[in-house]
Amino acid sequence: MGKINDNIENIINIVVNDYGNGHKIDEADIFSRPDQKAVLDIINKLMRIGFPGYYTDRTYRIYNLKTAIATLTEDIVYNLNKQIALALNFDKNYKDKTDAERNDAAEEITVEFMKRIPEVRAYLDTDIEALFEGDPAAENREEIVISYPGLYAIAVQRFAHILYHLKVPMLPRIMTEHAHSKTGIDINPGATIGKYFFIDHGTGIVIGETTTIGEHVKLYQGVTLGALSTRGGRILVDKKRHPTIEDNVTIYSNASILGGDTVIGHDSVIGGSVFLTKSVPAHTKVSAQSQKLHFNNDGDLEEVEPCDDAKDWYYVI
Amino acid sequence: MGKINDNIENIINIVVNDYGNGHKIDEADIFSRPDQKAVLDIINKLMRIGFPGYYTDRTYRIYNLKTAIATLTEDIVYNLNKQIALALNFDKNYKDKTDAERNDAAEEITVEFMKRIPEVRAYLDTDIEALFEGDPAAENREEIVISYPGLYAIAVQRFAHILYHLKVPMLPRIMTEHAHSKTGIDINPGATIGKYFFIDHGTGIVIGETTTIGEHVKLYQGVTLGALSTRGGRILVDKKRHPTIEDNVTIYSNASILGGDTVIGHDSVIGGSVFLTKSVPAHTKVSAQSQKLHFNNDGDLEEVEPCDDAKDWYYVI
Amino acid sequence: MGKINDNIENIINIVVNDYGNGHKIDEADIFSRPDQKAVLDIINKLMRIGFPGYYTDRTYRIYNLKTAIATLTEDIVYNLNKQIALALNFDKNYKDKTDAERNDAAEEITVEFMKRIPEVRAYLDTDIEALFEGDPAAENREEIVISYPGLYAIAVQRFAHILYHLKVPMLPRIMTEHAHSKTGIDINPGATIGKYFFIDHGTGIVIGETTTIGEHVKLYQGVTLGALSTRGGRILVDKKRHPTIEDNVTIYSNASILGGDTVIGHDSVIGGSVFLTKSVPAHTKVSAQSQKLHFNNDGDLEEVEPCDDAKDWYYVI
Repeated sequence: MGKINDNIENIINIVVNDYGNGHKIDEADIFSRPDQKAVLDIINKLMRIGFPGYYTDRTYRIYNLKTAIATLTEDIVYNLNKQIALALNFDKNYKDKTDAERNDAAEEITVEFMKRIPEVRAYLDTDIEALFEGDPAAENREEIVISYPGLYAIAVQRFAHILYHLKVPMLPRIMTEHAHSKTGIDINPGATIGKYFFIDHGTGIVIGETTTIGEHVKLYQGVTLGALSTRGGRILVDKKRHPTIEDNVTIYSNASILGGDTVIGHDSVIGGSVFLTKSVPAHTKVSAQSQKLHFNNDGDLEEVEPCDDAKDWYYVI
Repeated sequence: MGKINDNIENIINIVVNDYGNGHKIDEADIFSRPDQKAVLDIINKLMRIGFPGYYTDRTYRIYNLKTAIATLTEDIVYNLNKQIALALNFDKNYKDKTDAERNDAAEEITVEFMKRIPEVRAYLDTDIEALFEGDPAAENREEIVISYPGLYAIAVQRFAHILYHLKVPMLPRIMTEHAHSKTGIDINPGATIGKYFFIDHGTGIVIGETTTIGEHVKLYQGVTLGALSTRGGRILVDKKRHPTIEDNVTIYSNASILGGDTVIGHDSVIGGSVFLTKSVPAHTKVSAQSQKLHFNNDGDLEEVEPCDDAKDWYYVI
Repeated sequence: MGKINDNIENIINIVVNDYGNGHKIDEADIFSRPDQKAVLDIINKLMRIGFPGYYTDRTYRIYNLKTAIATLTEDIVYNLNKQIALALNFDKNYKDKTDAERNDAAEEITVEFMKRIPEVRAYLDTDIEALFEGDPAAENREEIVISYPGLYAIAVQRFAHILYHLKVPMLPRIMTEHAHSKTGIDINPGATIGKYFFIDHGTGIVIGETTTIGEHVKLYQGVTLGALSTRGGRILVDKKRHPTIEDNVTIYSNASILGGDTVIGHDSVIGGSVFLTKSVPAHTKVSAQSQKLHFNNDGDLEEVEPCDDAKDWYYVI
């Protein structure tokens, strides 16, 4: 270890002294922040509550399921409360409050969140039903719970959405970004999503913070429910920037629907790769006039319409 | 802990009592299901068999590789057999059978699966070759095995595909969804895929259950080999819903090829973003007539053809 | 275990004997390769150096942060050096060198890499700033560091890029493919990326090996900075195959910019889904002439322009 031995002291000095160079990120107090690992542990435990048995270590038997759920519930209460209290350090409303006041607020939020778990479970029931009815490749409901990324993403978002409404900073986003990393599905915790939500494949889906989605809505891979222009940056905070999707709407793969004033009327179908920045009345089927195709067969050129039948455009995944 | 102390009993009652509210998901018997963690452990061990040394803990030396592989093989046999037996609970053909009959069937499937491992390894050899020949950024074969997501996704699918053919419920999908989560590449275990399969980048690729793919086929990121309309939902179970891709076909990024009757003839090239719902004869180069572009340079507007040379359209990643 | 008992010996023979069948992948010496797990451990430790406190186990207190960083630094030096020495086995320039010469080279590279850590941290500071200024959904800088996938992907790439320039085989790609798996963002370690780099959502982004990106550049989900035709395969090694993006350019979702000669001039805006294979002068706004849409409302057909105002096309995410 010649070169390293000669340089190790120098290297350590270079790296350590860099912390005196005024990087913004070095100013933070590392003991007043939520802990990513602790939040992931809470997500896993919420999943076990949401789908009992599916995410467990199976050390308990069915006859003491209730005892197990009770223990799990207490555990979540304790840990979630701690993380909420840490997160509230980032809420400017608590800047001038005492620790006791902040802890009190955290407890109140924790209690409110826990009481709403049955509500989340009622929604998840409908999501499983929508996935089972909609996907011919699904063999049974258990398979959906164990392996479908769309269910995982919406389950995490439904829990995070409650914390978002209870105005907890940071935790909701940490939760949904974990689901994003695991599934490729990026649903902001602020989005309001109705019952019977169906996501198939899912990779590349983006659903923005101020999106509103009705019941029985289906989304396929690569769909963006996004904003027009974010050049405005921070001045757009708290504005309705993302679309409204009414009940019974199906949106096929890679379609983009953009803008806070855009409303997709109920019972509409949006075809694959459609790009929409305006509203659509109820019961409308929207399809993109696909590009013409060029077939080149050994120098023999042909211009081809993409579909024989325009109806095909409406129904693609 | 004032507010929490006051409410903890109430919270636990709310959460626990919700399990009496008739959610479909609560009816399942948690002891008769495959275990996700056990399946992931099997995947990891199959990878170590598939690519010896790459996924190991290196506690063994090269001269006893055979002993190590033998131990690993026994371990997979035991654990896989257990999970298959659990999965068969979800096969309605075994509803009225005894436990002994089901266990017997599980053993038969396990033996058959294990005997086909060399076949999978022969295919994986060709996949590595295709990746190395096709990607100028690859430095050597070892780098591909260690770091290429495309190889991971096809390796898991090839193992899962055998279990799919042996009619094991749930396990094949748990396996491929794990690979989907890790790579963003969603290949249904039912898809039939020939030798020398090449996936580059890969994020967003979707390959449906009844897809058939020949040898020496190349796919880039965002390609969908999908179905037309799934509005039919469960009535489409077991129908051929996804396309057939013949030998030596290259499909560039974000192209969508849809429908069970769609056949892409051998030695064809499908350009980036092409959207196809009809068949193409052999040796055809298909390109999309790209959208015209608008260039706005300080108010100076110009309408521009996207490519100077239409040939460019054929060959984009 | 009847059938398994009868067959276990046969199965083991089949699997083990397959290693004598001349698979290319079996030839490798498993003791002279970098270790994936060790590399992931190094990534995690570099993140803790990069963002102190965010990725730690919090066993240390703020007043001994310097001691903790020093320990972490020594740990990285030791482990990284070991992995670099293993990786150099795959560099043909070291084929005929002695172990001592290779180890010496590894030490020199390790020292050089470690000295450049403050440089990486200076870049990451600017990336955090760009994300905070650009995303109205971000509450504060800490949230970005804890949960934004775009920051994770660029942080890993900036470290990997230095190893790439120091000509270390394999390790840089293992690092960026780990970030790809976690975030869906695929940035080749070879890409040169300026300060204040902004990625939103990110899933599906692909940035090729020879891409050059200036300062204050923003990319949204699904953007490809790619190559034209890779039919050439290995003959393209080391050629400039990917585009150049100058300062202050914004590229909206799902746009593709392709080719080694393509230059996007500074202060340009590339609209969503634009497909470009040619250069664009400075200060240009490029938009795609979107497809016409078909609205079918209970048999009442209408052909609709996608946007009321062409300006909308420029600014979509």
